[in-house]
Order: sequence, then structure tokens, then C-alpha cells
Amino acid sequence: MFSPAVDNLVAQLTRLPGIGTRTAQRLAFHLLRVSKEEAAALADAIAEVKERVRFCRECGNLTEDEVCAICLDARRDQHVICVVEQPADLISVERTAEYRGLYHVLGGALSPIDGVEPSHLRIDELLRRVERNGVEEVVLATNPNMTGEATASYLADRLRGKARVTRLASGLPVGGDLEYADEVTLGRALSGRREM
Amino acid sequence: MFSPAVDNLVAQLTRLPGIGTRTAQRLAFHLLRVSKEEAAALADAIAEVKERVRFCRECGNLTEDEVCAICLDARRDQHVICVVEQPADLISVERTAEYRGLYHVLGGALSPIDGVEPSHLRIDELLRRVERNGVEEVVLATNPNMTGEATASYLADRLRGKARVTRLASGLPVGGDLEYADEVTLGRALSGRREM
Repeated sequence: MFSPAVDNLVAQLTRLPGIGTRTAQRLAFHLLRVSKEEAAALADAIAEVKERVRFCRECGNLTEDEVCAICLDARRDQHVICVVEQPADLISVERTAEYRGLYHVLGGALSPIDGVEPSHLRIDELLRRVERNGVEEVVLATNPNMTGEATASYLADRLRGKARVTRLASGLPVGGDLEYADEVTLGRALSGRREM
Repeated sequence: MFSPAVDNLVAQLTRLPGIGTRTAQRLAFHLLRVSKEEAAALADAIAEVKERVRFCRECGNLTEDEVCAICLDARRDQHVICVVEQPADLISVERTAEYRGLYHVLGGALSPIDGVEPSHLRIDELLRRVERNGVEEVVLATNPNMTGEATASYLADRLRGKARVTRLASGLPVGGDLEYADEVTLGRALSGRREM
């Protein structure tokens, strides 16, 4: 519509997840308005992240070194591993400040429909870590959706007899309203009820 | 949290309009996952747009040349100018396929609170075009909000006696529901009612 360069920027932005044509246009116009330095800072940040960041050799977390800061932290409990799908999930668990063990980032969840099979995820590496390091508990923190649950079941099978395997509790969100809870969540909250 | 490079990318993405920390993180992780080429394509598109794109000398629209394609199009009605705030608004008007005149992009709307005064917008250029080119009608297509209306009033005053000045109609959106229309819009629709 305006110029090949603008059209190309809009097209590139549209490839980002959750960014439609409208939003991409809005972002492109914003970038046209800001200073050359501010736009360059974003372009450089993208290039630099691809240059510097890689996956931790141990746990699959993001790092700029061979091994990530969490794996290197000797104060953390080396006998517990929390398994998450993505690095972003690791952040969420860290934010709770309730967990002091290590992590293992799978890089996704099993989904035969999308062609994601066990060999595509960092599962063999997890089993190796569990056996080699005398891990006592593996907390499965994959998402509470279909692919996440399938992945948790698969991992529980593979880990049986090697370590205690636990799963995050399902139930009502804190601050939520019973009236608005869906049946599945409420059902889980019921079956998982605890003594007080 | 992960690495300085990731934190920096998230910070840069957060500067974009409508992108909060969560969304910025999601975008950053996406960029970490895609191929180096795909990420580079986005970084390059940002750099290139700042390099190539400038404002049309005539109307203030975005272009890669001195004068934009619309201003150069001899088939368009040279005696009508539609005034919009931003290049994106021009696209919206073009999409209707109802308008065949020229445009004038102000680069914003008057807003004393935000420090936007007449001298910050392309207003003198508009008056010059109207007088020099024998423009017969100026269609004010600034936004139907407070700053857009203020800008339209200001321009109508400045243009009085120089050309016919019109404003986009306010009223009920097509496909809308009378029951859900706000009072101001419904009031405008009433006072602007037309014979059928």
C-alpha cells in the first residue's frame, strides 16, 4: 500500500504469534515514527539474541553460556527436577518463589497431530539426568491441557521406578469464583480435595 | 531472568505500543525458536524501513520517493483533499473505494495537553496546497474523538472562504444495534438524519 519496505516490515511482523495485519501495521507505523536509534535498538536486540543465546546443555533452559545459572547454583536442591514445556513456564514457576530445585525444559509437549513425538523433546536427556544424578523427585509441570497431560502421562510411565513422580495440583484458581469455574476444573478440585 | 540478551530484547519489544511484558516475552521466545534467517528478516525489515521510507513532500503520506504514488496519480481528482491524522487512516479511507481525490496527512491531532500545537502538524502545508492548486473541497477525516474534533474545528476555521469544507458523517455503525449505541453516537445519528 505505501512502499515495498513498509509492506515487507508488516509481512515480517505478521509472522510473529498473535500479531495480525492490523497490529502489524500499527507496530510498523510506530517504528516509522520513532528515532532511527530506537528502531535500530530493536533490530539489534533481535540479531543479538540469535547470536548469543543458546540452550543449557544440562536442562534446556536459555543461557548465554554452556550451562545456565540455575543448573550452576549449588544452593538449589539437586535432587528435585521440575519438568516444564518451555522456558517461559520456568519463569512462571520461579516467580512463585515456592520451588528451590532444578528444572528440565522439554521444548514442547507431545502432540501426534502436530507431529511432535518423544524424540523431538528433551526426554532422553531427562531420563539420563534422573539416573545419573540420583534425582529423588520429578515434578511434572507441563500445561494442564490435552498435550500437556499426555506428555505428563508418558513421562510418568517412563520414569516409573526411577524416581518419585508428582504432578502440579489442578483445582480452583485462587481468587476465582466457584460459580464461574468450568466443570472439569471443579471436578478436579473436588477429587483433589484436602483435609484441613 | 535468562540472559542479558533476552532481557534486552524483551525490554525493546515492550517499548512497542500495546506490547506488555508477557507479550514481549512470548515474542522473544518465538524469535529464539525460529531460524536465524527468519529472525534476521525481521531485524533487516526494521532497519530497511527506517533507511528507505520518508514522507511525501506534497501530502505527508509515506513513500520511498520524493512524492507518493497517490499524489502522482493523474486519474485522481486533484480538486478534493481528504485530511487524515495518520497514514494508517489513509489506508482505511482507500479501502472503502468511495474516494478518488487526494490526501493530506497531518501527522497527528491537536492536543494542548500533550503539547501538540498547530505548528507541529502539517497544517501550513495544507493551506498552501489548497490555495496554490485551486482545491474545491477539503474533507476533514480526523478521528471522531476529542482531539480529532478539535483539529477539525480548527481546520474548518482556517479554511473558511478558501474551499468548501466537509466532515465525515457521524452516526450508527452499519450492522450495529440501536440498543447498544451510546447516547452521543445516537444523538449524532438523529441530528444528522437524512431524507429517504
